[in-house]
Amino acid sequence: MGPICFLSDFGLADDFVGTCKGVVATIAPEAPVIDLTHEVPGFAIEAGAEILQHATRYMPADTIYLAVVDPGVGTGRRAVALRTGSGALMVGPDNGLLIPAAGSLGGIAEAVSLTRPEYQIQPVSSTFHGRDIFAPAAAHLHAGVELSRLGEDIEPETLVSLDLASLETEAYGTNIARIMDIDRYGNARLSILEEEADFDYGAALRVDAGDGEMPVRYVETFGTAKAGELVLVPDSHWRLSLAINKGSAAQALALKVGMEVRLTPEGGAGDGA
Amino acid sequence: MGPICFLSDFGLADDFVGTCKGVVATIAPEAPVIDLTHEVPGFAIEAGAEILQHATRYMPADTIYLAVVDPGVGTGRRAVALRTGSGALMVGPDNGLLIPAAGSLGGIAEAVSLTRPEYQIQPVSSTFHGRDIFAPAAAHLHAGVELSRLGEDIEPETLVSLDLASLETEAYGTNIARIMDIDRYGNARLSILEEEADFDYGAALRVDAGDGEMPVRYVETFGTAKAGELVLVPDSHWRLSLAINKGSAAQALALKVGMEVRLTPEGGAGDGA
Amino acid sequence: MGPICFLSDFGLADDFVGTCKGVVATIAPEAPVIDLTHEVPGFAIEAGAEILQHATRYMPADTIYLAVVDPGVGTGRRAVALRTGSGALMVGPDNGLLIPAAGSLGGIAEAVSLTRPEYQIQPVSSTFHGRDIFAPAAAHLHAGVELSRLGEDIEPETLVSLDLASLETEAYGTNIARIMDIDRYGNARLSILEEEADFDYGAALRVDAGDGEMPVRYVETFGTAKAGELVLVPDSHWRLSLAINKGSAAQALALKVGMEVRLTPEGGAGDGA
Repeated sequence: MGPICFLSDFGLADDFVGTCKGVVATIAPEAPVIDLTHEVPGFAIEAGAEILQHATRYMPADTIYLAVVDPGVGTGRRAVALRTGSGALMVGPDNGLLIPAAGSLGGIAEAVSLTRPEYQIQPVSSTFHGRDIFAPAAAHLHAGVELSRLGEDIEPETLVSLDLASLETEAYGTNIARIMDIDRYGNARLSILEEEADFDYGAALRVDAGDGEMPVRYVETFGTAKAGELVLVPDSHWRLSLAINKGSAAQALALKVGMEVRLTPEGGAGDGA
Repeated sequence: MGPICFLSDFGLADDFVGTCKGVVATIAPEAPVIDLTHEVPGFAIEAGAEILQHATRYMPADTIYLAVVDPGVGTGRRAVALRTGSGALMVGPDNGLLIPAAGSLGGIAEAVSLTRPEYQIQPVSSTFHGRDIFAPAAAHLHAGVELSRLGEDIEPETLVSLDLASLETEAYGTNIARIMDIDRYGNARLSILEEEADFDYGAALRVDAGDGEMPVRYVETFGTAKAGELVLVPDSHWRLSLAINKGSAAQALALKVGMEVRLTPEGGAGDGA
Repeated sequence: MGPICFLSDFGLADDFVGTCKGVVATIAPEAPVIDLTHEVPGFAIEAGAEILQHATRYMPADTIYLAVVDPGVGTGRRAVALRTGSGALMVGPDNGLLIPAAGSLGGIAEAVSLTRPEYQIQPVSSTFHGRDIFAPAAAHLHAGVELSRLGEDIEPETLVSLDLASLETEAYGTNIARIMDIDRYGNARLSILEEEADFDYGAALRVDAGDGEMPVRYVETFGTAKAGELVLVPDSHWRLSLAINKGSAAQALALKVGMEVRLTPEGGAGDGA
């Protein structure tokens, strides 16, 4: 197997990440670990899931994903490992964190619940499953242990689901996206990926965030927008953002995280309105 | 030898850690480095020693510990390397930082003072021995240089000592622990490790921080405490903490760092009081 | 080739660094990556160049330097790779960032513009060339691709230059240095390196920052200065700093970043004044 790609909300101020790497090195001394980020906002499952899904585009095909954003540690939530359709492996809590990435990696081909004590660090702490359950599982997988040996088979459809996109396409080419995030400049990051958009750079669209339509132009780079112009532009994760050059899209359109936004190409459904 | 486990108070804002890794890679290109943490509070020898000791439970047996929390750099304090009873190696300043971990690794079997210029980076800076003395020593050890070649033998009993625990057990099973740390929730971390406690989960105890006794219950997880209940609970380093669910133990018991705390199981010494 | 030494202003809060490492691992699975620092102040080309140049003293001779401080991303600035006289390789934007380090590594022997799409990650984002152009180039070089295959040859003299030192020596041994930085203690870091100074520890000098001369002593360590004494002392990057023990040199001499400072050994030019 390839590297272990490690994402968490542990931060780097404490020894949590380093301790997990000690566990990995003890079980699988040759396993390289790539720190994707350890600064996922605390307990923010959806933010972690988005970063993990995006990373699947840039990591080696045989990566083992080790992801720990785990507000449910110590409760009954399952600890799981997955094999994806593409052959990548994933380890983490059963809270949806792994699901969008697994979708991008060919879906879930096999899933187990991490219940075998011999593949855990004993005693298992009630608060730090990253160290005692998840890191050892990833390391054992790197060392060649079969996924099915780590615990009981579970049905993929019983896993807690998480849908980042919630993107729908209506008649006449209207895309309904959700606002995932608004940054400090007032740019609103949408749930729609560039590749999902059925319009091209330069296209004229209308955007409706619930308060009437406004014209918006789809551009490749922010630098091509005029001052004050509302544009739709891909960010470094290839998600489309609503932005105003030298202004705040969030303020101008009264945008809030979670809102639905309708994007209609000119010539589409809303034309007659 | 196994990986180099690197702990410091350098932080990650500067290039100190990266420069030390360059030195290691120059001398021992194959040596993997595990960053335990570089955010030990500045010059906090005891905090660094506690993290290092805890890490010995989770690192490979053949680890080379490289630890730099070094308020005495530029003074006469010695730079040392140790071989422990378990076979692990340690490199760092002679200020107590390595001592508790060495104790957990089977004690000190051999110690040398890092005085040989040919195993240092020349010129040796007066302020950055991490780069010029400690990192090269760890790397040379990884590359197979014998410990005794790095400098003069020294008697282990001449090393500056540091006792994290200062835990005593009195008659009738009373444990006297010290408060190492109080966190922002008012939880007080004690010097006693779970494995040193001579009572089990569910046990009823009395705690005395100098101001009279209070009942306390020893629980496995904080989640089982009732609101307002004073409990004793193991943290992720397996040290026992005094905590109040939805309250502040530090405030309720007027606790301060450094205080002694007496823990007596019900049925023990204080019963007749 | 040796390790990839990676410097950027990406910070560690996001997944930028981790994503670049995924790209490297995909192309060159065996390539070790040394994080020099990712906390270069945003867009601060000169600060990054200084750190990179300093690092060349401590990295393996066959290092591949990957440096990304890139305010011009998305504009016409070139992306380049260099071979130095010492055999080290460098990858980064053509904005001067690589130039001082290249100078310390024997000068530029060969330079190419990174224009070949087959050695980039497609599609190339308009904002994140670290991931799509620079990291893949460094990885392909590690994997054995010839520098000349990555793009068109360019003349080294057409590269954007950057001169950190701007150090001049006048008659009578006066060194004219520039103030690169002033820290929170009021210490002023000069552009002069210890090895460039033509005076030794203990030397008495006169310093003139534009407002008349003051005596200053050149010392090896700050600890040997008397309270209130103005000294010149080497820092961990071997640059000379003006400092006052228990005081602020910046305040006492009205120093500002960018100012020129004249240092004259006693017995030199200014003596008759």
